[in-house]
Amino acid sequence: MAKITVLGAGVMGSALAVPACERNEVTLVGSPIDDSIIRELQAGRHHPTLDVMLPSGILAVRANELQAEHLLQADVIIFGVSSPGIPWALDLLHRFSVRPNMLALVTKGLIAGRAADDTPLTYAQAISQANTNPEARVVGIGGPCIAKELALKIPTRVTFGAHRESVADELRTMLQTDYYRVATTEQFTELEACAALKNFLCIGVSAMIGAYKHDDGYAKNPVAGLFNQAVHEMFTLSRWISNSQESSAIKNSADLPAAFDLPGLGDLHVTVGGGRNSRLGRYLGEGAILQDVMQTTLKGVTVEGVDTGRQLLPGFRKACHDGILHSADLPLTQRILACIENNEPFAFDFCDLPQ
Amino acid sequence: MAKITVLGAGVMGSALAVPACERNEVTLVGSPIDDSIIRELQAGRHHPTLDVMLPSGILAVRANELQAEHLLQADVIIFGVSSPGIPWALDLLHRFSVRPNMLALVTKGLIAGRAADDTPLTYAQAISQANTNPEARVVGIGGPCIAKELALKIPTRVTFGAHRESVADELRTMLQTDYYRVATTEQFTELEACAALKNFLCIGVSAMIGAYKHDDGYAKNPVAGLFNQAVHEMFTLSRWISNSQESSAIKNSADLPAAFDLPGLGDLHVTVGGGRNSRLGRYLGEGAILQDVMQTTLKGVTVEGVDTGRQLLPGFRKACHDGILHSADLPLTQRILACIENNEPFAFDFCDLPQ
Repeated sequence: MAKITVLGAGVMGSALAVPACERNEVTLVGSPIDDSIIRELQAGRHHPTLDVMLPSGILAVRANELQAEHLLQADVIIFGVSSPGIPWALDLLHRFSVRPNMLALVTKGLIAGRAADDTPLTYAQAISQANTNPEARVVGIGGPCIAKELALKIPTRVTFGAHRESVADELRTMLQTDYYRVATTEQFTELEACAALKNFLCIGVSAMIGAYKHDDGYAKNPVAGLFNQAVHEMFTLSRWISNSQESSAIKNSADLPAAFDLPGLGDLHVTVGGGRNSRLGRYLGEGAILQDVMQTTLKGVTVEGVDTGRQLLPGFRKACHDGILHSADLPLTQRILACIENNEPFAFDFCDLPQ
Repeated sequence: MAKITVLGAGVMGSALAVPACERNEVTLVGSPIDDSIIRELQAGRHHPTLDVMLPSGILAVRANELQAEHLLQADVIIFGVSSPGIPWALDLLHRFSVRPNMLALVTKGLIAGRAADDTPLTYAQAISQANTNPEARVVGIGGPCIAKELALKIPTRVTFGAHRESVADELRTMLQTDYYRVATTEQFTELEACAALKNFLCIGVSAMIGAYKHDDGYAKNPVAGLFNQAVHEMFTLSRWISNSQESSAIKNSADLPAAFDLPGLGDLHVTVGGGRNSRLGRYLGEGAILQDVMQTTLKGVTVEGVDTGRQLLPGFRKACHDGILHSADLPLTQRILACIENNEPFAFDFCDLPQ
């Protein structure tokens, strides 16, 4: 039995506490905006945004009730916040001088690079640099995982990635249950990149749902065509971000690049199925302009794919200019960026797909 | 302008006639069961099963109206029948002693191998052997393509595969339009294998839709998890069927194995979205037994994935026995085969996924 502290009591952090508490002692720490959630949990009621009863074994604490021991004695600290909560979580580690034995990340995103080549960093890379914690003990969590389904113990399968597979294996030993199945990989940065990029690319795939209404639903061919293209562009971009120079020799399905596995095509599959990135995409497909949607229907909503796109932009432009990326191979990325940067209509032309 | 003859006036053959007739002279030949369809088209009415008006330039002829010249003068003959129509189409070629300049195949399936190793053959391989036509001039067509959407000119993207890419390119030059986009590949047998296997594997992925009802819909995580697994198993099986020994070195997204491209994950995406294989899968997911479904709700319906499974079985068992395939890596294939062979419940256990 390990001690696991989850930072952030939103849907994802709270859902992950469910498999985590099967064999471990779990403390779920609300961020300052989670106070009302924690009060409900402390009163023995449903998690209000998940709409699920959490197991009674989970100790729920509000941000201002947090004790140093919750962090210092933890075998694993899990960042379960969404991206705006990252500074709070990092600040906690600094304030209590915590150097976690192991840090696991659910939060995904990119940060525009400041290095000579402008290649964006994943959150994991940025957090490792901000924190005193060595990147070697950081585990990224990717793969299809809608929070509410996990909280209801509906089966899923995800990937834990770390620089050394043995570190990811350690976390798997703690967290894996019959319904929360875990594969492991050493493609740490590729996994983190895919997990961020899927939100961004989902916007373009989901646009096809809005663009081709048909028979009381929507046409399926355009969605499948751009789903395929999104996976390919995720492969190219994740290898660029992770600086994978070598070609991947695929001998069997255990060697697959992250883009062709759970963190890539698997997670993209659920992301297109619903959620905020998909909603934005559907509006764009109907002809809406991104800025208008973000100022009206989705006002105040965090659409992580848009943030990812903004962080991707400078490095992407530079890499295309320098011939490291070939823009003709990345028409979907180009169109989504044009929506984000210039408020252009999405209007994807299938003739722009590479031959 | 080329002369193109499409054999089979069901939904797929007829839909393909739509892009084909944009720049070519197209003859659409009904099989003996298509007489009523052809009569409607000849009377200038909607295609009754597609429920779409076909372009008036398409010449529709009934099976018994067929003239030798429709076949002998064709630059390309397209097999647009579903699998039960293959013997009729092959017989036509024999009867009129036609050795087509180019043969293109929409029909997909496997045929249990009779060679020493029992590896199944694709239809393309079997047809090349049955016909005098050299396999080198046969083009396989794979990728996401719901017939009605194509007939309505909603955009899609497919792959043409041939042993020499120049042959696939020739057909692309004839058929590609703004809405029917075409990639080409030399992975001829892998494409054909994926196109058959996607129907089979779709049954297992779709079972998750039936198995995990949730919130007035269905849970998305299990579907995405098995979608990912299906793509991986399609990769393994298609390489076995095509006898691809070498590892695929993936340098960029133009080199991808067919399973990770339009004929694989792209086509699987639309196939899980609807159709007969998906319907069967949903029933199995709800707990039904395959034989019962096929004798009641789906009585008389051709479910191509079941036929593919039956043809796959002997070779699969032998390859597992001989250590060429590893059954532990193929749990989804195993479960679907158990439903087909032994009428077992589908009941997929996520703990059986490879670690």
